[in-house]
Amino acid sequence: MNEQFQVKTAPELWTKLDMDVERFSNVPPALTGAFTDVFLSQENRPQEMSYFDDMVSNIFSGRIQEIYDAQQEGRPVVGTFCVYVPEEIIHAADGICVGLCGGSQFSIPDAEKILPRNICPMVKSAFGFKAGRICPFYQVVDFVYGETTCDAKKKTWELLDEYVPTHVMEIPQMKRERDKRLWVEEVKDFKVVIEEKTGKEVTEAELKISIETMNAKRKAMQRLNSLRHHNPSPISGRDMLLVQQIAFYDIPERFTKKVNDLCAELETRIIKENFVAPKGTTRLMVSGTPMALPNWKVHNIIEKSGAVIVNEESCIGTRYYKDTIATDGANMDQMLEKLTERYMKIDCSCFTPNDDRIDQVIKEFRESGAQGIIDYCLQFCHTYNIEAVKLRKACEKEGIPFLAIESDYSPEDVGQLQTRIEAFIEQIED
Amino acid sequence: MNEQFQVKTAPELWTKLDMDVERFSNVPPALTGAFTDVFLSQENRPQEMSYFDDMVSNIFSGRIQEIYDAQQEGRPVVGTFCVYVPEEIIHAADGICVGLCGGSQFSIPDAEKILPRNICPMVKSAFGFKAGRICPFYQVVDFVYGETTCDAKKKTWELLDEYVPTHVMEIPQMKRERDKRLWVEEVKDFKVVIEEKTGKEVTEAELKISIETMNAKRKAMQRLNSLRHHNPSPISGRDMLLVQQIAFYDIPERFTKKVNDLCAELETRIIKENFVAPKGTTRLMVSGTPMALPNWKVHNIIEKSGAVIVNEESCIGTRYYKDTIATDGANMDQMLEKLTERYMKIDCSCFTPNDDRIDQVIKEFRESGAQGIIDYCLQFCHTYNIEAVKLRKACEKEGIPFLAIESDYSPEDVGQLQTRIEAFIEQIED
Repeated sequence: MNEQFQVKTAPELWTKLDMDVERFSNVPPALTGAFTDVFLSQENRPQEMSYFDDMVSNIFSGRIQEIYDAQQEGRPVVGTFCVYVPEEIIHAADGICVGLCGGSQFSIPDAEKILPRNICPMVKSAFGFKAGRICPFYQVVDFVYGETTCDAKKKTWELLDEYVPTHVMEIPQMKRERDKRLWVEEVKDFKVVIEEKTGKEVTEAELKISIETMNAKRKAMQRLNSLRHHNPSPISGRDMLLVQQIAFYDIPERFTKKVNDLCAELETRIIKENFVAPKGTTRLMVSGTPMALPNWKVHNIIEKSGAVIVNEESCIGTRYYKDTIATDGANMDQMLEKLTERYMKIDCSCFTPNDDRIDQVIKEFRESGAQGIIDYCLQFCHTYNIEAVKLRKACEKEGIPFLAIESDYSPEDVGQLQTRIEAFIEQIED
Repeated sequence: MNEQFQVKTAPELWTKLDMDVERFSNVPPALTGAFTDVFLSQENRPQEMSYFDDMVSNIFSGRIQEIYDAQQEGRPVVGTFCVYVPEEIIHAADGICVGLCGGSQFSIPDAEKILPRNICPMVKSAFGFKAGRICPFYQVVDFVYGETTCDAKKKTWELLDEYVPTHVMEIPQMKRERDKRLWVEEVKDFKVVIEEKTGKEVTEAELKISIETMNAKRKAMQRLNSLRHHNPSPISGRDMLLVQQIAFYDIPERFTKKVNDLCAELETRIIKENFVAPKGTTRLMVSGTPMALPNWKVHNIIEKSGAVIVNEESCIGTRYYKDTIATDGANMDQMLEKLTERYMKIDCSCFTPNDDRIDQVIKEFRESGAQGIIDYCLQFCHTYNIEAVKLRKACEKEGIPFLAIESDYSPEDVGQLQTRIEAFIEQIED
């Protein structure tokens, strides 16, 4: 384990990317501190986590340099905010897809100079990073691809477009045949935009390889999540969250290999009965809205309260990898249709009706051997917040302990959350 | 003018409608008081307003009885929340369309027992009316037809369906050809649902008449709005708002006649120079989110602060009537397509991009001879709230005084709003 962990700086590179270098210089030390507190304070972490720790260490330097170099070679760099944007197509065009969801309070004041205060902190954080030029990922992308999955994002992309070219993919609000037809057309438009950037068409062979690459990535994550379901847990929820967050920043092939290495270690640990949480530790599952890097707030509170998190039903969690794309598409049209079918299985609360998600949460609860569900809702996220009413009812019916929390990125509610979460854990233990 | 105005009661009818009669009995006296304060305190109101005053007086009694009687005859009664739901089709089936948007604080505690607190008050109010059985309109409808224009509504319909059969129309989020194709299919589905209720198909002849009826209604409202633009104003903003609210509750043909009668009176008043606001009164336009009956809060504050409102760019305002349906459709398919084209012109902020709305607001500002715009946003309405950023910028560019306010139905912010609105009026007068 890296004993002198440090998030590295790259002021020259940042200057080239037209960042507000002076302000941003405060970020790496702050992230070093937070990471040390949340992650490095853990005991008996898997050795293979060192790769993911290094990714955090290099997140504003080495990884940005890699992306910058790729871009200099003419490879497209696309920023996205949502697991509905089909990264297979970017990858097929030899491009780089980076997640731009904001997970930090740092950029929120920049956003609130322009946006309403009472919208989702993830959207504000993302917008503020660009408005303040305080995120190297934003500065290195050629363009961003937004989508229409919620009111706040949909309307913020209109404003973001004034700072960075922003395309928008329409994600329908239902999942019937007519919605699929519209969706496939959106996927085709997406492909055209990528091709226009590279100046050449994506071939069937390229897309086929890319689909297989991303399927392999998702399967590795399924494997990892399945291993972490072992009771007792061979890996903490914090470490799992970190791996799932890094998935949005890393080179897919490299990431897949490292996830499989971690899986191999966990398999050995399970055989050797080398666990991170002793038998009898309260096992909780988290459902709900995504936790973008470095949003570790709730995981940190839960696990420091003595429980272990054994599943994330989230976009930064199972929604990202529970489904793969069928590889039997015989031509480009069929391949894009099968790709779309896979994306249509993602059960974001933006859809109505969305009862499949309720069933999926219960299913993941059973599979993970959790003893309770903490439903996490980003503040002002209306769709997950209202869907939680149905989820609570379903959990009550199944006799599953359920706690709904709504939170932003500020530290203000930490004490209150801690009290509620501790009480929830005690209630389960009784 | 009715000097002994009273909102009438109908406890026997309410009992038949399975209402919570005891609780609801508090509503008519409260509405009597509010109406007297907001409307009857005005001087020199047009005589023809007495019809609309009577509509308020009968809103929980006579009008409900009319709807109840129609329903007993087998005519479909459909509740809606949005100007995107095509009432022409309901009317063609000899049905009754009633607006169910909630405009009252009264039902919000009922909603907040189930829904999150931090969503739109209109959605909470609407849901609470049904959950508490404290609105006769909800109790008299056969079913409701929701839509997907915002996150809060879209997800609330899933819960509302547990109380009253709730169909949902998918309104797309963009306005391209592929969106239109989906939209036309939604309109056709809507027609099927209405036909299933009546047990017979809507004919081309019936739809044609209905389109003409609704076009006539919209044209009457255009005429009225055009007359009220006269400087000085022949009618107050409060009275105009009331007429526009009643539009969602009344029989179309009767309403159209009464609006035209009011227009004739205003024409005479203009000739006779009999105005409600003296020359030099500050003229303001309101843009933004709808004000459902009895939400008179902001209009009351503005006009009691000495200004007169000369236009509402709102769903309860111009968005409801600025466009009519082309009547040259040769067959059912063409008629439904032309109907859809008209509905697609409504420029709700749920669409992206939605720059047509910005242009429309500026156009209405010019046409109404307003001197400033107060952009009204229901609390937590993300789409209008974020769109206000663009609208403010456009107004600054045009040199138009602009004030954005966000408010709910509680009386708590009245003092603060009053201060801000008075300051805005003073700034214009300087």
